[in-house]
Order: sequence, then structure tokens, then C-alpha cells
Amino acid sequence: MAATIDRVRSDHYVIPLEVPLTDSMHGEMRGFEIITARVTDSDGAEGVGYTYTCGHNGGAVHDILGREIAEIAAGEEPSRIAHLWRKIWWATHYGGRGGPTVLALSAFDIALWDLAAKRAGQPLWRHLGGADPAVKCYAGGIDLMLSADELIAQTEGNLAKGFRAIKMKVGRDDLAEDVAKVAAMRDHLGAGFPLMLDANMKWTADQAIRAARAFLPYDPYWLEEPCEPDDIPGNARVLAEGGLPIANGENLRTVQDFRNFIAMRAVSFPEPDVTNCGGVTAFMKIAKLAEAFGLPVTSHGAHDFTVHLLAAAPNASYLEAHGFGLDAFIEHPMEIRDGVAMAPERPGHGVNFDWTGLESLRRT
Amino acid sequence: MAATIDRVRSDHYVIPLEVPLTDSMHGEMRGFEIITARVTDSDGAEGVGYTYTCGHNGGAVHDILGREIAEIAAGEEPSRIAHLWRKIWWATHYGGRGGPTVLALSAFDIALWDLAAKRAGQPLWRHLGGADPAVKCYAGGIDLMLSADELIAQTEGNLAKGFRAIKMKVGRDDLAEDVAKVAAMRDHLGAGFPLMLDANMKWTADQAIRAARAFLPYDPYWLEEPCEPDDIPGNARVLAEGGLPIANGENLRTVQDFRNFIAMRAVSFPEPDVTNCGGVTAFMKIAKLAEAFGLPVTSHGAHDFTVHLLAAAPNASYLEAHGFGLDAFIEHPMEIRDGVAMAPERPGHGVNFDWTGLESLRRT
Ligand SMILES: [Mg+2]
Ligand SMILES: [Mg+2]
Repeated sequence: MAATIDRVRSDHYVIPLEVPLTDSMHGEMRGFEIITARVTDSDGAEGVGYTYTCGHNGGAVHDILGREIAEIAAGEEPSRIAHLWRKIWWATHYGGRGGPTVLALSAFDIALWDLAAKRAGQPLWRHLGGADPAVKCYAGGIDLMLSADELIAQTEGNLAKGFRAIKMKVGRDDLAEDVAKVAAMRDHLGAGFPLMLDANMKWTADQAIRAARAFLPYDPYWLEEPCEPDDIPGNARVLAEGGLPIANGENLRTVQDFRNFIAMRAVSFPEPDVTNCGGVTAFMKIAKLAEAFGLPVTSHGAHDFTVHLLAAAPNASYLEAHGFGLDAFIEHPMEIRDGVAMAPERPGHGVNFDWTGLESLRRT
Repeated sequence: MAATIDRVRSDHYVIPLEVPLTDSMHGEMRGFEIITARVTDSDGAEGVGYTYTCGHNGGAVHDILGREIAEIAAGEEPSRIAHLWRKIWWATHYGGRGGPTVLALSAFDIALWDLAAKRAGQPLWRHLGGADPAVKCYAGGIDLMLSADELIAQTEGNLAKGFRAIKMKVGRDDLAEDVAKVAAMRDHLGAGFPLMLDANMKWTADQAIRAARAFLPYDPYWLEEPCEPDDIPGNARVLAEGGLPIANGENLRTVQDFRNFIAMRAVSFPEPDVTNCGGVTAFMKIAKLAEAFGLPVTSHGAHDFTVHLLAAAPNASYLEAHGFGLDAFIEHPMEIRDGVAMAPERPGHGVNFDWTGLESLRRT
């Protein structure tokens, strides 16, 4: 008889940042919230997932996991992931279809896949149909307000950590300041070194096209989130008229959002975040959708889980590695050598939290 | 000196339904959650708003109002509504852009507009630039599983209450059952009586086109939510090929969602819900957007607030009147005479809650 879900437990922590971070639209970030989901089945096996925010709505995510999803999933078979996903989607649709509801569903879905892979005795990337465990990484900096010199110093640190691709923020009020920093970075890194730019939804389509054309001489690998995600035709114009490949996805919350972006040629590098797009279930659908359209798939956030997903995708592009202090509470943080991380061979996703250590950071 | 926000208070109640309700996608509903927002300014004046759900995510909405919005809005001038709306939108965007975050923002925004109209000594509909206080209403039933006889008995009750327009659910597994009920209702109500149909996102576009053509001989006033809201081209096909006007909006959570539906000719009757589309600020933008495209605006839910908004819109269509037991906790429930409700002349929206009575229904 298949095991059933005994318990869904959620915890809510805040990891303070040593140095506040800035980007073009979210303002100053002083800490990241992490909201965990632990699913225990009737055989005592456990799966673990998490989601995170840059400072708001974690309490809501925690409430949805502990109150709504725990009730909706109680007694169900955890191996019927597709069924549970759809059941939760529709049960919470009126107050869902995005927002904290999808973040909560993502954490729960990750826990179910962890549990399934553990029970199969497989690392998640093999359980998902394994492609290549060696995954190229880039360092994702949140560094809009750094000067060119500070940015280059940060970059030196990232190169020393093993990165061979770097992303920097753009979107200052004065485009000339962005351009000068991009030029300095290209000069420092040399021709051909992958340098990504991220505007965090700062611009209108017309502003973004002007910016893309100004960055073009410095050969960026991609320009990320030029415009707000609700303006798909605007994003499509930037791709068609700006001259640069476009990455987008960290603020898309559904497979349908990605379908619309991809079908309307508004994105070159779909960039789902497994902790906010609907979990492993949705991430892998998006990866396959991208593949069907001849596109690579990249990622946002949660590199410790996501390394498995890109290792399972034959169309994998770069993995974003973007720590915010969580590594201090993980048994085996991801390691990068010569620009590459290896998906681990431990069963499940193999991310083991220091629950005792996290206790001092509890928010709810 | 302009007053500032002293306090944002939120409360979370569940109003149980005497008889469980059913529609095609949400399953059985046993109670509605209501989450209130009360904003007090530095002069001691108060504005009140609420949002609601059909049973899930109210705890998350409550958390966002009391934890996030209260912090983001503290010390701001409550009369700078457009500024506050945008500040909250972007501060909560990562875990927002829909879901419980927009429901919370809606309740807060309603409270700000109530406060502003009260301070101006005006009823909300006049404060918004008044059109016509007499607003046509229809009775919105949640009645998918009723037989034709039960539906007609319910309809007799609604006619006795003063309604002169009726909406019924469709979307049973067997389309023939829907068609038989629609035929019975048309026969009972007579030619020309406004009869709306609501499918609650049940169908694919192809199924919906088949259904629309089957309903066409019975002259429905509109067909509502034929397909899921993420499939805008699918909804547009139903409008173009099905032969019926299409209403949509209760599951759209942003002005941009409405813009996309309207610009892509996927909706005939935009139907925002002031408690989930972003509040009065967003509802009135959607009403004006509809007007610019030559469309009427109708509504979903919260008729007590919304009667003011349609009374302020020169392109107003029908107001949905859809009680779920909240009238028992409101001092002056909306009255309907010969199919029409009058927007009240009391300052603000004029909805005064029985807070003591609600206390027994507290959830959080
Ligand atoms: Mg980004
Ligand atoms: Mg409806």
C-alpha cells in the first residue's frame, strides 16, 4: 500500500544580510526570509523544501503551508505529485494563481520530489531522468549601487571562488552610469567572458531598447528583466528591437506566464525559480517547453535544489548561484570549480538543514 | 498639515454558509472568509475595507495586512493613495503581483478611499466624480448542482426580493444538463429577461465554443469565465467564435490582466472585483479602460462597496449582488427595488460593521 501524508510542517526564518543589497525596483534589502516545508509520510520518511522572499510576505507563505496546504494534502499519497499539485492549485485558486500561494506550493512540491527521489534511492537529478551532472554557474550579484571599482573588487572575489561567468545589476536613473560600469567590467574581464546584465524591471520598453543598444558594444551575454513582467508585448519589443538576448522569469509565477512569454517571443533565456514558479513540477515543464521552442533554460535562486533540475535538462544554460547566508545552515553547500558545480549523488536533493542553528533566526 | 497613518488593523473571520455552495471548479464551499482592514489617521478618523475568499488563504491576507502593509504604510499620508498603492505594489512584488497580496492591498485601498470620502464629507460615488446613483443589479447564484425545479424556486425567491436579472451556473460534466436548465430558465423568465450564465473556468476553448453555441438559442445576456484566465487567446476565441458576449474578471488580479484581456478582445463585460483587483484605485482604472474601448463595466462580489463604483462609472452595466451572510453584520444592507439599488448618500462607502457580532466568527 502506498504511503500517505502524515504531516506538513512549515517554519519561517529571516536571515539578516551583513551588508544591505540594492537593485533597481525592490529598494534596500536587509534580510531574506526562508520558509521551509517538511512533509512526513506514514512510513516516517521525510521530504524537505523551501521558498524565500527578499523581505516581505514570508508570514503569508508560512500561513498557507501550515494552514491550507497541510489540510488539503492530509491523507493523500505523496507520490501522486501531479494530482496534489493540481488539487492545491484549484483549491487555493481564488486567493492564489500567483503571490504567496505559489511560493508555498513550490516549497511543498520540492518536498514531495525530495521524498520521492529519496524513496527511490536516487539523487533528484537522476530521478528526473538525468542529463549531465556538471552544471555551469554564474555569480549573481545584487550590486546596483556599487561603483565600478567596488564592482571589480567584488568580481575578483567571485573569480577566486571559481566563477567563470558574472551577472551585474543595471538600471540606475542615469543610463550613462550603467554603461560606464558595463564598459569597465568588459574591460576587466576581457572579450568573450560571459557577462550578464539585470535591470530588475526598471524600464519601459522604449527605455529598455535604448539601454540595450547602449550595452550592445560590450557584448552582454543577456539582458535580464528589462520591463515589468505584465507587459509581454513590451518585453517582446525589447528582444526584437534592442539587439540583445533577453532573460526573464524570476517574477513569473506560472507555467502559463512562461508559455505566454515564450510563445510571444518575449524571452531568449527562460529563467524560472523553482521556489516561486510552482516547484520542481512546474520548473521541469518550463524547461521542456523552452526546449520545444529551441530555447535554453537558466535559473534564478535556490541553486542547491536547482543544480539537480539543470542537471536533468538537456537544454540547460547557466545556473544562478546567489547565496544570501543560507549556506551557513546547510551541511554540504554547493561547490564551484572552474565555473562548474556538480549535482550531488546523495539521495533526494541532498540539502540537509541545520535546524538547530536556524532556530535563532525564527520569525514565525 | 496633512494627517498621517497611525494604525492599520486587520481581522479575519469566517462566515459559515447555511447550505454549502457549488460551482464547476472550486468544489464545495462551506464558508466565506472575510478579512477587514481598518486605517486610523493621526486625527482619529477611520476608513474601513474588506476582502474575502471562498475558503482558503484568508490567514495569508490577514498576515500581509497586519505585518507587511501596516509597516510599509506607517507614517505615510493616507490621502496620497496613488503613492501608497505603488509603494506597496513594489515592496511586496516579489511575493505579490497577485494572490493574497493583491487581496490585502485591495482591502487597504478600499479603507483609504473610505477615509478620503469621509474626510471630504461625501459619499464615495460622488467623491469619485458621480455618474448615476441608480445601479441595475442581478442576483448571482452559486447553484451548479440544483435541479431545474430547485433553480426556478430559487429564482422565484430572487424575483420576490426585487431582482430583474438573474445569473445561473453552468459547467456540469454533461453539457446537455446545462442546456436543459438554461432552456427551463428561459421558458420560466420569458423572452428578453436578462439571464447570465457562469462557467467558472470549466472548459477548454473548444469545449466553451461548443457550449456557447448550444446556449445561443436561449439568448443569454453573457457567458462568464468560459476558460481559465491564463489562456487569453482561448478566451478570445470563445468570444469570436461562440456567438455570445463574454464576461470575465473575478480571477484577474491586476489592471494589466484586464488590459491584456480587453486589448486582445477576449472580454465583452469586464468584471473586476474591488476586493481582489487592487481596490477602488484599480477598479476605477479598469472601468475607464473599458470605457476607452467602448465596453461596459460590470462587477463581482462586495456589492455594498461596489454600488458606489458603478454609480461613479458612466459605462456601468449590472452590479452583481451576491450575499454570503455578511448582510447580517452590516448596519444598512443594500436594498433592491424593481431591479435597482441606490448608492447611499452616507459619507464614505457607508458600510458600518457590527464588530461585536463578528467577534464570534473570528478565525485569526
Ligand atoms: Mg534577476
Ligand atoms: Mg463568476
